[in-house]
Amino acid sequence: MSKHVTFKPYDLTIEVADGENLLRAALTAGVHINASCGGEGVCGKCRVLLESGELESTRSGLISDEDWGLGYRQACLSWVNADVVIRIPPESLLDRRTLTRRRAGIGLRPSPIDLAALKAAGLYDPAFQKKFLELPPPSLADNACDLSRLEQGLARSHGLDNIVHDFFLLRKLAEVMRQDNFRVTATLDFAQRRSRKPRIVDVEPGDTSERHYALAIDIGTTTVWVQLLDLAAGTIVGHAADYNSQMSYGDDVISRIVFSQKGDGLQKLQRSVVATINQVMHRLLKKHKLPVAEISHLTVAANTTMTHLFYGIDPKYIRLSPYTPAACHTPPVRARDLGVEVPDHVFIYSVSSVSSYVGGDIVAGVLSSGIYKDPKLTLFIDIGTNGEIVIGNQQWLACAACSAGPAFEGGGIKYGMRATAGAIEEVSINPQTYEPMLLTIDMVKPKGICGSGLINILAAMMEAEIISPNGKFKDDLDTPRIRQGEEGREYVLALAPDTESGEDITLSEADIDNLMRAKGAMFAGYVTLLENVGLKLQDLEQVILAGAFGNFINIDNAITIGLLPDLPRENYHYVGNASLQGASLLAFSRELLEEERRVAEMMTNFELSETPGYMDQYIAALFLPHTKMDYFPSVVERLKGAKE
Amino acid sequence: MSKHVTFKPYDLTIEVADGENLLRAALTAGVHINASCGGEGVCGKCRVLLESGELESTRSGLISDEDWGLGYRQACLSWVNADVVIRIPPESLLDRRTLTRRRAGIGLRPSPIDLAALKAAGLYDPAFQKKFLELPPPSLADNACDLSRLEQGLARSHGLDNIVHDFFLLRKLAEVMRQDNFRVTATLDFAQRRSRKPRIVDVEPGDTSERHYALAIDIGTTTVWVQLLDLAAGTIVGHAADYNSQMSYGDDVISRIVFSQKGDGLQKLQRSVVATINQVMHRLLKKHKLPVAEISHLTVAANTTMTHLFYGIDPKYIRLSPYTPAACHTPPVRARDLGVEVPDHVFIYSVSSVSSYVGGDIVAGVLSSGIYKDPKLTLFIDIGTNGEIVIGNQQWLACAACSAGPAFEGGGIKYGMRATAGAIEEVSINPQTYEPMLLTIDMVKPKGICGSGLINILAAMMEAEIISPNGKFKDDLDTPRIRQGEEGREYVLALAPDTESGEDITLSEADIDNLMRAKGAMFAGYVTLLENVGLKLQDLEQVILAGAFGNFINIDNAITIGLLPDLPRENYHYVGNASLQGASLLAFSRELLEEERRVAEMMTNFELSETPGYMDQYIAALFLPHTKMDYFPSVVERLKGAKE
Repeated sequence: MSKHVTFKPYDLTIEVADGENLLRAALTAGVHINASCGGEGVCGKCRVLLESGELESTRSGLISDEDWGLGYRQACLSWVNADVVIRIPPESLLDRRTLTRRRAGIGLRPSPIDLAALKAAGLYDPAFQKKFLELPPPSLADNACDLSRLEQGLARSHGLDNIVHDFFLLRKLAEVMRQDNFRVTATLDFAQRRSRKPRIVDVEPGDTSERHYALAIDIGTTTVWVQLLDLAAGTIVGHAADYNSQMSYGDDVISRIVFSQKGDGLQKLQRSVVATINQVMHRLLKKHKLPVAEISHLTVAANTTMTHLFYGIDPKYIRLSPYTPAACHTPPVRARDLGVEVPDHVFIYSVSSVSSYVGGDIVAGVLSSGIYKDPKLTLFIDIGTNGEIVIGNQQWLACAACSAGPAFEGGGIKYGMRATAGAIEEVSINPQTYEPMLLTIDMVKPKGICGSGLINILAAMMEAEIISPNGKFKDDLDTPRIRQGEEGREYVLALAPDTESGEDITLSEADIDNLMRAKGAMFAGYVTLLENVGLKLQDLEQVILAGAFGNFINIDNAITIGLLPDLPRENYHYVGNASLQGASLLAFSRELLEEERRVAEMMTNFELSETPGYMDQYIAALFLPHTKMDYFPSVVERLKGAKE
Repeated sequence: MSKHVTFKPYDLTIEVADGENLLRAALTAGVHINASCGGEGVCGKCRVLLESGELESTRSGLISDEDWGLGYRQACLSWVNADVVIRIPPESLLDRRTLTRRRAGIGLRPSPIDLAALKAAGLYDPAFQKKFLELPPPSLADNACDLSRLEQGLARSHGLDNIVHDFFLLRKLAEVMRQDNFRVTATLDFAQRRSRKPRIVDVEPGDTSERHYALAIDIGTTTVWVQLLDLAAGTIVGHAADYNSQMSYGDDVISRIVFSQKGDGLQKLQRSVVATINQVMHRLLKKHKLPVAEISHLTVAANTTMTHLFYGIDPKYIRLSPYTPAACHTPPVRARDLGVEVPDHVFIYSVSSVSSYVGGDIVAGVLSSGIYKDPKLTLFIDIGTNGEIVIGNQQWLACAACSAGPAFEGGGIKYGMRATAGAIEEVSINPQTYEPMLLTIDMVKPKGICGSGLINILAAMMEAEIISPNGKFKDDLDTPRIRQGEEGREYVLALAPDTESGEDITLSEADIDNLMRAKGAMFAGYVTLLENVGLKLQDLEQVILAGAFGNFINIDNAITIGLLPDLPRENYHYVGNASLQGASLLAFSRELLEEERRVAEMMTNFELSETPGYMDQYIAALFLPHTKMDYFPSVVERLKGAKE
């Protein structure tokens, strides 16, 4: 049930979910209300007047009895349970709406796969299928071995020949065949890579053809996701996730590779990620009351380093020039050979990588977003420490990894932090007073700034005109918010009394410089890849944002700072955890399972540091939004509008 | 260096190996000399006179000084080191030679494979091959993954494409490639069954293409043989054997199957035979100073039960009607999954079985003897408790197992024993005196009678006319050698003072009855198979004897008793340990490795108990040599000759 909130004096009405916080509703609507405590209710600046309807508000000591009686409430301590009309008091009144409506955060949850579309496209055709068989029991006149009986049954009832089989099947075959008088269900694998022979994977007594599951796994450097797929019904049953327990050996891929080179480091890392997978998998299966025996196979997508570590393959040369992985492709591997706690016959299929820094997670994204068969010229981006870029269409694909640095993950920024409770995420800055309006994750006292928050702050600073295109604060602003700090000039986002730590939270010119380098590296990457295939930025027809971070990015703000190319919003698409989706698609579609290596091989890898023109593009991008302003016509308009 | 021995008064000269025992030389020449102590020198009956030349003789107390001076020697205590003329003294003089020349025993050692013939036939083409490659080291301009570099090298230097690879290769690839600056040797498997894709199995630094080995294994119920093959040179390096340590869980396949059904019996049996294989393998490799890392694959042949037990597959239904194995064919299996102590990448290829009692050992024999591509109608026999029979040619093959019973292995015969020291093996009976001439294995005091000895005794009794065609002793013979024993009438082969145990060694009518049933089951098998495909015994063109027992059979005697069909001797061939040979051939010939399953499937299995006519044939065969004497024209001639 949604409710309506009308903001006066703008007469702007938006629809919000029942129970929405009023400060968040204002931010979503693009209505500025001063707020510097991140939503915790301690600064008292977000006073609003309830003109009609009912709010569920908590009263703090910051509102007098008289004001409470008049209808004043703190927006951050109010929740919308009915249609309301809210007036923004004059002290916070703005004559222009400078904020765009914010996309509702999808969060880390995987986006749903469009199974209907998959089925409509004829791609819903799992490589693993179950076939029920009623076999004639043996007699002295026909005492062929159980395996031949099974093969003959598959030939007779399902027209299958040239069948091969998994060895471990043989150990239980005799008993299983006799348990229900030679009525059995065979699990078949139709996707032995580069071979078209069906392979008998498992056999169960009776008709179990309706009980057939697979697991798709996304091994992120930080998080491991497991999705449970019902192959008989063609549905996603559920998912579960946990931190990759390799985290205790290092935060990023480089520190993991370094650790892998020490003693039995590689083994430790391998066992560690497998332990996480086992734990998440068992929890997921328990939740859905499924025995592990009903899992026929696993599919995995991960970046190149995570793939190496999962398989126990030495990743040493990934971090040493010229950056060669040991293998970008692995054959199906028996899961128990890796320590994954599934039955003997279960194999793991993983998505191929392209290069050391364009991994199976990106190829999975290319598969799940369908770029490789889309006629439109598409830019696929996954932003992180290494921002991965893919550009192309159904005919060609070029890709590269940009060393964007850790700025978007909070690294190299004085008050940078991961996107957890207390991270400043949404910001607006009053263009007259230069006062900020902050919203933190979980609406607790501010602790620092997360990656999407940094993008939003930078865009807000540009719109409020407190920074110049070169990333420096303007000299002539009359505000205590801008001051000389220990590391040069800085903007004070939150003052000590309002913060978790009791110290000011600021963003300095040095921080802004790091952000500009990060966004510049990405942008230079797009332009360089395009130029190297003879195209221009303007030729781009759509942009796909993948990855957890992509989900939280405010696209308009990211375009404003020059991180994303200036395309109309409708040409942008979020695909959420595209890596997990790609892994799931492998289980749902035999064609994709068979094609994935071909798609990976279709992706031409560019080492940007070696690619002509990249450094020039990088230098040109160290500007807000860019030295070449005609790359960003809508930003020019927007900033012009902000000034009026 | 061979020597000549002339026997007087026959003026018969034979050539013998330097150092040959004189009693054995006489037996080989068909010269009867009384001898009842098996060759140990204690009965003193085998006196001969040295007329010219020199013998190396040991003097016992049984020859007086005077006789020694005259040139009398004990044949069993004399060895031939020079050309000699020997006179048989009148007391032993026979006017007819009733013994045939005996084939020199090959022993248990595997017969050599005719590698020259294999090469001439274009079949020498191992499925596993090593290829040396000098790869370009990676650079920033070419930083494809190590695996791609390897694949590209194989494509460029050796024209190979569609390459797949073994997962475990990837774990060492990066280091191996860099150890000798991208000069590597790849081991390739060209025989993924039913698929033609080369598979990279292993990679080693530098050029190791001259160092490439495989192991062929014959898992017998009693003995495990391992043969070391040099695939680079195309030679057999050596072999080693030991008793199958499963022996402690039961002597024969049936008792092993029974044991496998008790608790963790199957696991125990599996581990037990693998322990034997590991032990024999390591001993063999140590002897030839080869590291196990140079073994690229293993090939195995064994009967159906041994195959099941080796792989840990439940053999339960092999012994229960309608006698269905779980699987007659196993895909390549990673050796370490079975506990075989070889590197991770080593797979085991085994020869397919046909049915519960016609196993991979027989199919290996069919492969190594080449029946499946021979235009001649051939009978292939492996005689044991279960005598396996294959009949056919390049166009069809029929097979069956005969339950011959354990008689030929010494079972069910009062003084039957295995073919070890002291077993009476060679026998002649003086047709006038009915005195026997015995030779035991290792020429020690007689302990009992082995299988080939039983055949020889029965033939000797037929020739000496002491038994009738119905297997009963004749009534009218005046000799103390035939007497009434506890279990009916019996012939005394050795008297108590001459034997190991100090009791008489006899062969009774009950024993003879068991022997007749055993040989009758086999013979009825040949005839039944032939009749079921519309052919007659006379259509047979050649006979191949396989197996350890086959090596020791005196063919003329076996024909005489009606165990083997009456074909000219030149149409008989021994193939020794055909199972081990077949396993070796799989390693030497890709075609055979790929074809073996097809050959097994070409072999139509007959369950004799269910096959029309078998029982009638069996009854008809319970006669010496057979109720239908025209099956055995040469025997009729021989027996007639013996009487003259």
